[in-house]
Amino acid sequence: MLNTIHIQDVFSFLESLEDSSIDLAIIDPPYNLNVATWDSFKSQKDFLDFSFKWIDLLLLKIKKSGSFYIFNTPYHCALFLHYLQEKAVFQNFITWYKKDGLSYTKKRFVNNQESILFYTMDCKKYYFDCESVRVPYASTSRIAHAHKNGILKNGKRWYPNENGKLCPDVWEIVSQRHKQKINGKTQKLHHPTIKPKEIIERMIKASSKKGDLVLDLFSGSGMTSLVARDLERDFIGCEFNKEYVDSSLNIKEH
Amino acid sequence: MLNTIHIQDVFSFLESLEDSSIDLAIIDPPYNLNVATWDSFKSQKDFLDFSFKWIDLLLLKIKKSGSFYIFNTPYHCALFLHYLQEKAVFQNFITWYKKDGLSYTKKRFVNNQESILFYTMDCKKYYFDCESVRVPYASTSRIAHAHKNGILKNGKRWYPNENGKLCPDVWEIVSQRHKQKINGKTQKLHHPTIKPKEIIERMIKASSKKGDLVLDLFSGSGMTSLVARDLERDFIGCEFNKEYVDSSLNIKEH
Repeated sequence: MLNTIHIQDVFSFLESLEDSSIDLAIIDPPYNLNVATWDSFKSQKDFLDFSFKWIDLLLLKIKKSGSFYIFNTPYHCALFLHYLQEKAVFQNFITWYKKDGLSYTKKRFVNNQESILFYTMDCKKYYFDCESVRVPYASTSRIAHAHKNGILKNGKRWYPNENGKLCPDVWEIVSQRHKQKINGKTQKLHHPTIKPKEIIERMIKASSKKGDLVLDLFSGSGMTSLVARDLERDFIGCEFNKEYVDSSLNIKEH
Repeated sequence: MLNTIHIQDVFSFLESLEDSSIDLAIIDPPYNLNVATWDSFKSQKDFLDFSFKWIDLLLLKIKKSGSFYIFNTPYHCALFLHYLQEKAVFQNFITWYKKDGLSYTKKRFVNNQESILFYTMDCKKYYFDCESVRVPYASTSRIAHAHKNGILKNGKRWYPNENGKLCPDVWEIVSQRHKQKINGKTQKLHHPTIKPKEIIERMIKASSKKGDLVLDLFSGSGMTSLVARDLERDFIGCEFNKEYVDSSLNIKEH
């Protein structure tokens, strides 16, 4: 059932989907960091077995022309990347540079990032709209000047793009937790790991067209579904904990 | 022979080193990106076989209390991380956010980063001096104010550290290629992939003491050896192409 969040086990949900039916999947799965019971596993092996199981099922459900994005720690994304060799086409190892860490330590460098794997199913035939996700140029004064007169680059006069530069694979986007601080104090969120809207918007704009079907596995609050709805894409979501899901979304219990 | 760059094949050089003799290894190996003949491999499998071979030898040469850093693309670092499971202790997947890409494309997000794997041989007994590598706070005005009056954080008054904040795992450091542009034009460097001095300094300060022995495999220009010398560490390097090596370094041909 389209445009609905299904309250269901992730495996039975995935099995219920038609093969090769999804244009874009945005997956924010457990990280095995113990932030909640759904994020705790007996062992690293259990976590990887679980992860590879949903990855295998997921791959069957994405269209040959489709794309997918997977969030996780850099460490787990590296292991997922290894697992995905020969199974899908690697596009980017995106760094979400959130300037707000998962752990504070003096024994190593302080965590300030999460990673996002971006894959397509085909090496050539896939949709990617780089124009819809341009970002501001870094040097605003130099660019303002260049809009008037251009900049001489290797003998040619170059004019900046009005919508900014092509989007890089490092995304400087403040975390939801950090953004919602009040007087410097962290607030308890409805869901512990909500992803920023800007991130989801960027993925949906870059890798889907209006009317495409977006899969929102491990929906959580349903941010991916909410953004898909706003951007006139169809969506289908799955979440185990009904209480996480945004109340404006249609819910079906199984 | 210490404080010397050995002009030698990497494998015969590694075999000549004493086991468990290195305090810190900083490795900037081939990336398989075809930037030069030494960076070209017949196949991805050949590249990985080559990489895993020097990694295996390297691990034997590092002290039980030692550390190592490996540069590469995020993709190859992910595969190296998979290979290093159970062999050494993962500390950080560092993102070198250089804001200057290896490739320009409209088919995916534009590359703006390289990755650096940071490992130690032991999970507890290793040297890491977080104090020597603090970086400036992001918000200078807020911090200047806080130096005077402190900031109330969860009921306690917090004063910023005079040397800045603890160093995160995302390193915003402009590439050597980008830094040496003249009138916006890229200059041909002596070696195509010299790593910025700031990066090497950070690694040596964080993960070694004065008098420690730093291994500089695939030396290239010898930046790691030069910085080690400046910071009063011993070093030993290996490079195949004599003409790359900085002329102020002692060279031994084999």
